[in-house]
Amino acid sequence: MNLIILKEEDFIDESNVKLSGRQYRHMIEVQDVNIGDTMRVGKLGGLIGDGVVTSIENESIFMKVELSDLPPEKLPLKLILAMPRPKVLKRILQDSATLGVSEIYIIKTWRVEKSYWSSPVLEEENLIEELILGLEQGKDTKLPKIEIVKLFKPFVEDRLPGIISGTKALVAHPHNASECPRNVDTAVTLAIGPEGGFIEYEIEKLESMGFESVSFSRRIMRVETAIAYIMGRLF
Amino acid sequence: MNLIILKEEDFIDESNVKLSGRQYRHMIEVQDVNIGDTMRVGKLGGLIGDGVVTSIENESIFMKVELSDLPPEKLPLKLILAMPRPKVLKRILQDSATLGVSEIYIIKTWRVEKSYWSSPVLEEENLIEELILGLEQGKDTKLPKIEIVKLFKPFVEDRLPGIISGTKALVAHPHNASECPRNVDTAVTLAIGPEGGFIEYEIEKLESMGFESVSFSRRIMRVETAIAYIMGRLF
Repeated sequence: MNLIILKEEDFIDESNVKLSGRQYRHMIEVQDVNIGDTMRVGKLGGLIGDGVVTSIENESIFMKVELSDLPPEKLPLKLILAMPRPKVLKRILQDSATLGVSEIYIIKTWRVEKSYWSSPVLEEENLIEELILGLEQGKDTKLPKIEIVKLFKPFVEDRLPGIISGTKALVAHPHNASECPRNVDTAVTLAIGPEGGFIEYEIEKLESMGFESVSFSRRIMRVETAIAYIMGRLF
Repeated sequence: MNLIILKEEDFIDESNVKLSGRQYRHMIEVQDVNIGDTMRVGKLGGLIGDGVVTSIENESIFMKVELSDLPPEKLPLKLILAMPRPKVLKRILQDSATLGVSEIYIIKTWRVEKSYWSSPVLEEENLIEELILGLEQGKDTKLPKIEIVKLFKPFVEDRLPGIISGTKALVAHPHNASECPRNVDTAVTLAIGPEGGFIEYEIEKLESMGFESVSFSRRIMRVETAIAYIMGRLF
């Protein structure tokens, strides 16, 4: 928690907040916060600044906050991700928010395990909580846009043209691939398949919409590792 | 498990192996392996090839194996890592083996939490098991060299000159840093601090031995994310 994210409902008035739950416990147990301490805070979706602890009582921390700094720029990256194992999705959501991904689309593809779709992590409240953990790590306040997509074909045909417009559209797929570009100066849309990869039909569909198949290593990485690895290479 | 790693003790004779435990369970429960199936296998530290399942009995799988292919080249990267949380260390060990890191030094620094050193993950057998999981993911058979270092100063003064010789020595440290190089054509030694970073004395020590402080993003990443991100950038 390099930055404490303040939600609308944490505000008592314009410059006073009350934090409890996870953030309270982290501040007390890990950060050993005391009255008078100054912490970096940021309003979800808004400005960053300092918060001074004014009181600690009833499992809550009260702070007087002053917000004046803009959050960092988002990375010009849209991520299209075949639904991974729910535990892995949590880490990817956190990392994506930390790294500043601007849009995330979690999609259904042929090889996505059906049972994953009933995971509670996909409930909006839980998605937001994971993204907030990532924002707190990366000192950002702006949530990426996130969308869950359960039908592949209409998404690709109807939505993708708008999404990839003005971006370099890449799909991580090792067969018949060109080398993944480095240090690009354009926005990128990056599609990542499930364990076992996209099927040929899906790759053909993506390529027909303008995606380029790229490979970035001969080694097969865990998907969360691959995402960080590719982002380090692209930006 | 994109490659099944065979240990010395799995061999019944030169071309027959018996697998049980974790690998048996994964092959039965996840990969749904049957008699006659061919799997990619590799001998720990040795060649890669095919294994044909000849029998499944008593919670064991028997395979006839033929090994003929060289494992992939290691990445020219030595990693010097301040001991992270044990759970995080596990993931980093796996990823490091997957990505082909050649040497790993887990070191004690000022801000490393003392309790981490009593974690069972640091026992040799457990270190090797995590690395093997990573090799199985990345389809490699050669373990990185790994060493646990509990004294910072003698390591830096006596051992580092040999370790960094012939490599570009970089320490991830955002203050007074140059931009982390991209797509290097040399070997690299990369030092990564603990949560909260190296202290000034440690940075001065490293710089006096020839390390260059580099930054690679204004966002603060989890250490396992940072490692993959930097590796994507370097190679």
